[in-house]
Amino acid sequence: MSNYYGNNIHLNIFGQSHSQAIGVTIEGLPAGIKIDLDRLDAFMARRAPGQNALTTARKEKDAYEIICGLAEGRTCGAPLTALIYNKDQHSKDYSNIKDMPRPGHADYTAAVKYRGFNDIAGGGKFSGRLTAPMCIAGGIFIQLLEERGINIFSHIYSIKDVKDKPYELTGPFEDVSQKELPVIDNNVMEAMKETVAKAKSELDSVGGVIECAVTGLEAGLGEPMYDGIENLIARTVFAVPAVKGIEFGRGFEASLLYGSENNDEFRIKDGRIYTETNNAGGILGGISSGMPIVFRAAFKPTPSIARAQKSVSLSKKEEGILEIKGRHDPCIVLRALPCIESAAAIALFDLTI
Amino acid sequence: MSNYYGNNIHLNIFGQSHSQAIGVTIEGLPAGIKIDLDRLDAFMARRAPGQNALTTARKEKDAYEIICGLAEGRTCGAPLTALIYNKDQHSKDYSNIKDMPRPGHADYTAAVKYRGFNDIAGGGKFSGRLTAPMCIAGGIFIQLLEERGINIFSHIYSIKDVKDKPYELTGPFEDVSQKELPVIDNNVMEAMKETVAKAKSELDSVGGVIECAVTGLEAGLGEPMYDGIENLIARTVFAVPAVKGIEFGRGFEASLLYGSENNDEFRIKDGRIYTETNNAGGILGGISSGMPIVFRAAFKPTPSIARAQKSVSLSKKEEGILEIKGRHDPCIVLRALPCIESAAAIALFDLTI
Amino acid sequence: MSNYYGNNIHLNIFGQSHSQAIGVTIEGLPAGIKIDLDRLDAFMARRAPGQNALTTARKEKDAYEIICGLAEGRTCGAPLTALIYNKDQHSKDYSNIKDMPRPGHADYTAAVKYRGFNDIAGGGKFSGRLTAPMCIAGGIFIQLLEERGINIFSHIYSIKDVKDKPYELTGPFEDVSQKELPVIDNNVMEAMKETVAKAKSELDSVGGVIECAVTGLEAGLGEPMYDGIENLIARTVFAVPAVKGIEFGRGFEASLLYGSENNDEFRIKDGRIYTETNNAGGILGGISSGMPIVFRAAFKPTPSIARAQKSVSLSKKEEGILEIKGRHDPCIVLRALPCIESAAAIALFDLTI
Amino acid sequence: MSNYYGNNIHLNIFGQSHSQAIGVTIEGLPAGIKIDLDRLDAFMARRAPGQNALTTARKEKDAYEIICGLAEGRTCGAPLTALIYNKDQHSKDYSNIKDMPRPGHADYTAAVKYRGFNDIAGGGKFSGRLTAPMCIAGGIFIQLLEERGINIFSHIYSIKDVKDKPYELTGPFEDVSQKELPVIDNNVMEAMKETVAKAKSELDSVGGVIECAVTGLEAGLGEPMYDGIENLIARTVFAVPAVKGIEFGRGFEASLLYGSENNDEFRIKDGRIYTETNNAGGILGGISSGMPIVFRAAFKPTPSIARAQKSVSLSKKEEGILEIKGRHDPCIVLRALPCIESAAAIALFDLTI
Repeated sequence: MSNYYGNNIHLNIFGQSHSQAIGVTIEGLPAGIKIDLDRLDAFMARRAPGQNALTTARKEKDAYEIICGLAEGRTCGAPLTALIYNKDQHSKDYSNIKDMPRPGHADYTAAVKYRGFNDIAGGGKFSGRLTAPMCIAGGIFIQLLEERGINIFSHIYSIKDVKDKPYELTGPFEDVSQKELPVIDNNVMEAMKETVAKAKSELDSVGGVIECAVTGLEAGLGEPMYDGIENLIARTVFAVPAVKGIEFGRGFEASLLYGSENNDEFRIKDGRIYTETNNAGGILGGISSGMPIVFRAAFKPTPSIARAQKSVSLSKKEEGILEIKGRHDPCIVLRALPCIESAAAIALFDLTI
Repeated sequence: MSNYYGNNIHLNIFGQSHSQAIGVTIEGLPAGIKIDLDRLDAFMARRAPGQNALTTARKEKDAYEIICGLAEGRTCGAPLTALIYNKDQHSKDYSNIKDMPRPGHADYTAAVKYRGFNDIAGGGKFSGRLTAPMCIAGGIFIQLLEERGINIFSHIYSIKDVKDKPYELTGPFEDVSQKELPVIDNNVMEAMKETVAKAKSELDSVGGVIECAVTGLEAGLGEPMYDGIENLIARTVFAVPAVKGIEFGRGFEASLLYGSENNDEFRIKDGRIYTETNNAGGILGGISSGMPIVFRAAFKPTPSIARAQKSVSLSKKEEGILEIKGRHDPCIVLRALPCIESAAAIALFDLTI
Repeated sequence: MSNYYGNNIHLNIFGQSHSQAIGVTIEGLPAGIKIDLDRLDAFMARRAPGQNALTTARKEKDAYEIICGLAEGRTCGAPLTALIYNKDQHSKDYSNIKDMPRPGHADYTAAVKYRGFNDIAGGGKFSGRLTAPMCIAGGIFIQLLEERGINIFSHIYSIKDVKDKPYELTGPFEDVSQKELPVIDNNVMEAMKETVAKAKSELDSVGGVIECAVTGLEAGLGEPMYDGIENLIARTVFAVPAVKGIEFGRGFEASLLYGSENNDEFRIKDGRIYTETNNAGGILGGISSGMPIVFRAAFKPTPSIARAQKSVSLSKKEEGILEIKGRHDPCIVLRALPCIESAAAIALFDLTI
Repeated sequence: MSNYYGNNIHLNIFGQSHSQAIGVTIEGLPAGIKIDLDRLDAFMARRAPGQNALTTARKEKDAYEIICGLAEGRTCGAPLTALIYNKDQHSKDYSNIKDMPRPGHADYTAAVKYRGFNDIAGGGKFSGRLTAPMCIAGGIFIQLLEERGINIFSHIYSIKDVKDKPYELTGPFEDVSQKELPVIDNNVMEAMKETVAKAKSELDSVGGVIECAVTGLEAGLGEPMYDGIENLIARTVFAVPAVKGIEFGRGFEASLLYGSENNDEFRIKDGRIYTETNNAGGILGGISSGMPIVFRAAFKPTPSIARAQKSVSLSKKEEGILEIKGRHDPCIVLRALPCIESAAAIALFDLTI
């Protein structure tokens, strides 16, 4: 079922882009916890649009309200529900894309699945806006994971063909979240900005890759076969719109290596077993090895573009041209980092609680 | 939970490499179905070791026995359980790898997780042998999917740096399963064989990529967010040992494109809506578009190699050298195609039943 | 997990008695459905307190708001969330029962489970108030079940030792929901009222039994063993606070019969197979027989009483006397009928969708 | 799904009465555990038919074989599968009941559900024989629960109208499992035997009630609403064939009491909080109170009787008389105690692991 995740927790995301509110219910948080709301705000701000000139111009703060689940400021064992009210769902006309689905979007597949009753306004339940409640959950879990020494990092691995320096798979991992662009190598910022700006000026969009690392996860977590760490993180990461690929450790590149190159040899130091390299991305047989979990998620370019595109009128059953004027976010990757971190946090918090 | 999968079906795989038997229980098959056992045998044979000179020399037929779930040769609504008895679990000594985990294997992570009580013989529950019951389930589901016009294809996309011709994402997809090597371009066979033979002669191993396509899936299947088709297939594909990455449609390559290049424009012909290209791999918003589902799974090189490797004695807490003599399968990719097809079939049968 | 139910749907109830809001999220409603809000209001009104002199004096309308899940007044495939804002959560002091748990309530068990962080105000998440969102879901499902010819009836089977006429297990079942007291035999009303009034005047409370029947369910639904109709309905009915027993068909009484008396013999009329009697309550082997589903749920007397009771100070670890002044609902059974109907509807809608 | 149970464990029961084998797979047992097979045999023996003159004459030992899940005699983290081979599934003719369903059995409902493809031989998957693998799982869990100080007791509360002494709800609970008839009051044995013998001689059957108690469960377990202890135990107990009702603590009788009588007042002794009475059966708000869990399960009389009964020919669509000669078990309650204990153990082990 779609908007629901969890084995040990229950995470339930609801709302459409233009419904009265969107939100999330989280069940399974330990009782007695104080959520640092300032930190959660800061985390959410990394996802919000309008942060810089590169992203969409619309300035929007995702002001959430926790409507239950707390007592005297602490979690109380009851499910926690947080809402974000949609203030400006004005009467913009969406009838054009209701009839003529946007290429690359879920307009068509949703129309088929829900027999035309899907909410098209703003993308409905398929809107990237739904990553806001995902980040509320993720932001809370990240705080709780950190208390147990588990930290999640991410950086822009690439925007189109502009690549940042990749992570050393064994770590350490620099926190670049507060940089103007969250990259390791400051020298690539300019080229990335130009790439996005060019796409924007051409009414087009670009994609990219986000690399994410998790440190501090003890060895022995995860289950072989269907509930390995790869399986679980893949399931939560593909919930982030526009993700089309995921790889762990050396990932696809591992297919080019010899076994003798790819196998991570075991070492021991001060009684602690580790591996010299971390091509496995911290996962062997689905189970954490104690080394950092490292994965990369590939984003397709934002499907929303302002260029004219061929499409089909669902009512007239004929081909036509769709052109959508107005602001577009030329590169959602720039603000998708907290979504990917949240995806990892959701999978791992559920696994470790 | 590890060996269990299903939302609408219940699939439960059990057994260790050297336990008395391994097997699978499938609940949720429609009643009244006749399974074509000859076809299932043929499907299983593609996975079995010892098919050709390239794979491991050990000749082993996965003779399964269906011990319940049928009445008068047809499914009867009861769970179907199939067993494969392990005939030759002789008293080989595994104490060396029990104490000194093999790099790239789950020996170490299992030892931590199960506090040393894990079954090490033949890899225990982490053995590739457990893909045999996975293929029993997959092979049955494939038959049932075919009756509904859904077909699954796969080919070797690459072995190390030797690449086959990739699929045209819009199809059609040739059935290459009966070729000596399941590739589209016969000209690459020789280079692939040489690559594997070289690895073998050097006591080493190689990995590769398998590309898989599913045709005939109607539009509108799958759920947005956590139960999209990408999420579900990723979860079952990462259950196949050694898979370290997965991508759908253009996958990672999509991150290099402009939105205007990557968006699949809609067309209509004879009342049927389709897309001109299929960069999305048949999935938009997690939901099937009616176009073929195409994905690629990256395999790391087989971790079993005959070369000496550094490892650690768990008992003595000191470093040492591990050398494992004997036969090794230098490239499991060659016989992993039915496993990947099974993974797709498991996810899709569960989704569509 | 507590507040969550569903195999094919996702039902998620959240909120505490005095949190900003309580509510429910329902995922899995078919798209395109128009909910009859007037009927839902009427259904909810049967649960609301303050309906007559017998129940608690507090007048409270459960005005719910649907904040997402609809588009143009119809379900749109997105999860539907309905909220009931808690308007008057005034600063009443609950410190006494926080320290001294009320006998028969969950105060003590919640304090242990949530290590003292549980929300005690108004009973927190254990409040009967949480049956309001349960009834929103149930009321919607009842409408959808009715469209498929499935109807749910209930009546007060007994209040303390005052018994209504029981259902004929084979039906038909009279709709008594609009009577002043929902009983079949009007003659018992007076005695029931007196029983409740007497308990009230003595600062005490009484329990009772609700009998519920479901007609129109086709034969062949439900799964043997863990997901039989008895298992599923039992699970949802025990979610209604104060239920301590459930029985199907003849239930406990069947244990007093001979097999030859209890077995329902098969008959056929106009090609339709039915049973002469319905001691099985419409369920054989966990599967619906096509006869009406009939079950009874036993309610303990409302634990809230105004009498002084022995309890223990959790902080001082000493015994004491707890006395809670103010209004009490002397018999929750009177307004629990929609809750029981909702429980049946939740289990059956999930099973049949 | 039918034969599957578990939130934290995975329990999967498979097989039909006359399939090659029946069995159970258990995933989630801690690694490193030694199962006491002699005790498990003894536990299974209490369920086996042919124990005394009262039960069915057929002597049958449920010799199970553990085919995987152990390494060196201990659980190893892999799923444990145990099989019972069906040795004597001879070619008895079941075509009569295939066409003419037995009243009180699942023959008819299964025929509808599985469109006539259900396995009718010996009752197929609905056979009481499937409680044998249920008891393998239950017997193992009971051993593990005992190691944590949790004990499960049961006795025959009644056979038809002959009643044993009920449990004192606060305990202690005598272990009567080794008595000829597992009752507290030896004086009722004779009357029970006579009741069963009379039913047998009249080709009829009788039902009864089993009372079960669990001691040693700490306070604070279970979840409110859908996963309370009542919900979970009800779900596993209704999986035992012929159960038609369940009640906790005072159960239905509580509906006859005043709140002031039924509320269990809190006391404290040596720092330990307890209740003076245990009308709640150890459960408040779905959560364990630390007092013994006590429940009763009502069994309908065995539907198998040797008397002629009316039924319907499914093929001819006409009424007829069904008479089934041969041995019948006139009272399954006598050997259902380990099944009920197993049901409790399955629910509680899953909850507490």
